[in-house]
Amino acid sequence: MEQEKAEKKTVLILSGGMDSSTLLYYLLSEGFDVSCISFNYGQRHVKELHSAKDIAFKAQQKVLPMGLNVHHEIIDLTGFRNCFAGSSQTDPRVEVPKGHYEDESMKATVVPNRNMIMLSIAAAHAISFDINSIAYGAHAGDHAIYPDCRPEFIERMQSALLVCHYTPIRLYVPFKDMNKVEILETGLQLQVPYELTWTCYEGMELSCGHCGCCVERLEAFKLNKERDPLKYENQQ
Amino acid sequence: MEQEKAEKKTVLILSGGMDSSTLLYYLLSEGFDVSCISFNYGQRHVKELHSAKDIAFKAQQKVLPMGLNVHHEIIDLTGFRNCFAGSSQTDPRVEVPKGHYEDESMKATVVPNRNMIMLSIAAAHAISFDINSIAYGAHAGDHAIYPDCRPEFIERMQSALLVCHYTPIRLYVPFKDMNKVEILETGLQLQVPYELTWTCYEGMELSCGHCGCCVERLEAFKLNKERDPLKYENQQ
Repeated sequence: MEQEKAEKKTVLILSGGMDSSTLLYYLLSEGFDVSCISFNYGQRHVKELHSAKDIAFKAQQKVLPMGLNVHHEIIDLTGFRNCFAGSSQTDPRVEVPKGHYEDESMKATVVPNRNMIMLSIAAAHAISFDINSIAYGAHAGDHAIYPDCRPEFIERMQSALLVCHYTPIRLYVPFKDMNKVEILETGLQLQVPYELTWTCYEGMELSCGHCGCCVERLEAFKLNKERDPLKYENQQ
Repeated sequence: MEQEKAEKKTVLILSGGMDSSTLLYYLLSEGFDVSCISFNYGQRHVKELHSAKDIAFKAQQKVLPMGLNVHHEIIDLTGFRNCFAGSSQTDPRVEVPKGHYEDESMKATVVPNRNMIMLSIAAAHAISFDINSIAYGAHAGDHAIYPDCRPEFIERMQSALLVCHYTPIRLYVPFKDMNKVEILETGLQLQVPYELTWTCYEGMELSCGHCGCCVERLEAFKLNKERDPLKYENQQ
């Protein structure tokens, strides 16, 4: 019984974007207690951290009556922002590329080894709180540009996480074969509050509508025949 | 030629202890430029960070005339010290165990997933500075207690590091089959300034001489028939 209880807790890397927010609601629908962690790594789009906080809070309100818990914590990585130099997402000197999310130009948005760092800290968090799994929202649409979202990376990290401590830590990546359109479809069914999520790579008040992430997000809503509840710059 | 130059740079995780300090001198003897990083993770024995700084500086002075470079940086991880709760090395409520380094009681000194976190940040550092390898001082004597020093962990991290970015990052762990006595033997030949290194797990002015690390260090000097240049509490 104790074992069963432990298996229904997981640590989620929650960025505040569509994928991880959908994953939070998906995990709750599967009956998990979820300990969310978000990372402040000096990202240009720091606004996503507020989104993460709001989404975790909203989810917590929703599931408390069902006896489930959502915990949220922001982890400060700005102490080593030097390590993240050279990416448009952390270095103000590098411009955010416009265009489609899968374009070659999007390589400028790669933050060096970000996912391995996040997974390794998530594992420390899991170990400290006697949780034996980590969930993260990597998906098929990320593979083209981001090496640390590809299946081979996920498999190898899983393999290392199994032996990093006395008890194995398991990776749970349920969206790894889904694309953005399918994730959104899942999230719409789960009533994810997409008006609270943040996707844009620019750090402005409203979403730009032109960076790779905005373009992909708008496309996913269009293909799901839904209107994106977010406000965009220059929106009619 | 460019490629050869790049291969002679490495990122070293330098704790300020005997193993990584010896590894620094070993790498320099092999002709590497070394970019050292040390981590402030709220460790009780924060004194080792001063040691790391002093050793890197001393090494730099030694190798500059040979055209080699030593760079040193301390990376602040205290922003997520919560993740490291429950270890005697980071949690003042947990006592440092006395006895031999390989005893079961030493499990209290395990800092959750520390090595995966350090390696992943070291890789980000390497990528940012166009370096394609990471050196770290894991050795055979660590295997009994620390899961993240064992060969299977090192192999799996190597495997993940090969695919975490567009170009592979290689792990260099030359001491992985050596014990403390052999590492010290190597270091004595390389004239490592052991008087600057810090080993003790307690955070006192002088080394305690009784924690697992002190016991092991003193034993290694004794077996090498050398006197440890460090001062100890209650030393005659």
